[in-house]
Amino acid sequence: MSILVVGSVAFDDITSPSGQMKDLLGGAATYFSLAASYFTDVRVVAVVGEDFTAEHETVMQKRGIDTRGIEHSEGKTFRWGGQYLDNLNEAKTEFTDLNVFEKFQPQIPAAYNDTQFLFLANIHPTLQGEVRRKMNGVRLTGGDTMNFWITGTPKELAETLKNVNILLINDTEAKMLAGGERNLPRAAQKVLAMGPQALVIKHGEYGATIFFREGAFGVGKHPFRAPALPIEEVKDPTGAGDSFAGGFMGYIASQGEINREVLKRALFYGGVMGSFAVERFGTERLQNLTRDEIDERFQIFRELTHLE
Amino acid sequence: MSILVVGSVAFDDITSPSGQMKDLLGGAATYFSLAASYFTDVRVVAVVGEDFTAEHETVMQKRGIDTRGIEHSEGKTFRWGGQYLDNLNEAKTEFTDLNVFEKFQPQIPAAYNDTQFLFLANIHPTLQGEVRRKMNGVRLTGGDTMNFWITGTPKELAETLKNVNILLINDTEAKMLAGGERNLPRAAQKVLAMGPQALVIKHGEYGATIFFREGAFGVGKHPFRAPALPIEEVKDPTGAGDSFAGGFMGYIASQGEINREVLKRALFYGGVMGSFAVERFGTERLQNLTRDEIDERFQIFRELTHLE
Repeated sequence: MSILVVGSVAFDDITSPSGQMKDLLGGAATYFSLAASYFTDVRVVAVVGEDFTAEHETVMQKRGIDTRGIEHSEGKTFRWGGQYLDNLNEAKTEFTDLNVFEKFQPQIPAAYNDTQFLFLANIHPTLQGEVRRKMNGVRLTGGDTMNFWITGTPKELAETLKNVNILLINDTEAKMLAGGERNLPRAAQKVLAMGPQALVIKHGEYGATIFFREGAFGVGKHPFRAPALPIEEVKDPTGAGDSFAGGFMGYIASQGEINREVLKRALFYGGVMGSFAVERFGTERLQNLTRDEIDERFQIFRELTHLE
Repeated sequence: MSILVVGSVAFDDITSPSGQMKDLLGGAATYFSLAASYFTDVRVVAVVGEDFTAEHETVMQKRGIDTRGIEHSEGKTFRWGGQYLDNLNEAKTEFTDLNVFEKFQPQIPAAYNDTQFLFLANIHPTLQGEVRRKMNGVRLTGGDTMNFWITGTPKELAETLKNVNILLINDTEAKMLAGGERNLPRAAQKVLAMGPQALVIKHGEYGATIFFREGAFGVGKHPFRAPALPIEEVKDPTGAGDSFAGGFMGYIASQGEINREVLKRALFYGGVMGSFAVERFGTERLQNLTRDEIDERFQIFRELTHLE
């Protein structure tokens, strides 16, 4: 079944211990859609500038991604520069030029109206809310956000969260969203009380945990954790979280039913796609995968914690 | 089979968001031996001062721990004060009074000579090495260390590590011991090249990973990870790592064979004992457990990452 992602397309300048790269095709919607494309049909709503060429669009189209929702606007595409020299787990931003992204008003093509799954990548919560209302018929909505919105637009974010089924954020964001609660399970409960039925907290190299609202997607009071395989080759951590979200949501969209077992597997697939993303600069690794490679790593991740 | 732990017995003053407690019986050897006592026979070599009473010793003896190796010395027991107000994952030391521990010269009672498993808790690596040589007939030696020795006595530590089968340290220590290597799997390979056949890296609330030297304890190139259950009740993180080591080594000592499957289960039991330790101040929770409670949590941890 089809999934629509609404978010940023960008060009990134990245410096990591493995080297320096400029003008890499990036952005949350790009990483998400490439990762999700190995599981299901993907549609994108985003805005780009005149520097985004047919060649760039082909990167997505080659993966079967429907790019009719990418709006071509006058000016430059969103550009971001960051480095990971001190810490591979956290980017130090060097510059952020929003460019055409500053005035992004998501337009949903009529052809996308039958979309069944929606992912609201990290954009202004009011825009997320507007898209969510327009896509009223979706079966399931996933969402992301960041510190900037948690502290800057808390009311708008709270309003949007009421209509997000599964929120995907990291440890720091979860604790911040829970008003500074430092205990993760308690922070999770507070976030779930804001609306989502499930909360995925991403732990970077330690994997991710999904917490459920009582009775949501099945029974049981315990969370579920998918550990990430510790990988030796981390060239560029950019987009790991968005690729995680793409694998997670893409796998869910590929399944007929949505239950806890599906969500657990989706958590593993999220980790798998995140781990591929970081092996090369930009989206290179995500452009050239096979489903066999993905399932092979899924098995490795599974065996990583499997007792006889 | 019996296990001997050599390390500190201490009194701790702890301040955490849950409150403030003074004169708590603590120390690595105490946490380790209480945790291990649920799996196997435990023997302790440590030094205490005149403030360590029969009542304190009874805490261990009630759990069947052989305390004949605890040397009673003139002066005060090792005392440590720390607080976790800013960060539950890392203690801020308020004071360290080594007292009788400063001149600790481990004496092994003759009755301990038939011990089969040895754990060298965090003491001067030269002392660890001496104990290791005296206990030449053990089947397996586990060890711990800390930043202080990694940077202060690297040669002595390197010498000791040659005769440690399984080293248990945390992420920061592993990276430091590997000369500042920031990638965990690569850091692990460097540490394994120093001597140990296996390296357990503890990740705090994210669990622990065991890395194996090629061919050690079985076949396969992949590490194994035991995720910890995110727990809502963290009153006092002190001793979590030592309790982890006690559960890990205690379980191994309780098994006839030492192979990868045993080590994997041991990693889960380590996490289980660490998670119990932090639920109450000091060693309170470790004094009053049942094996049923332990195995119940083992199942919960196992299901935490188990796919159908």
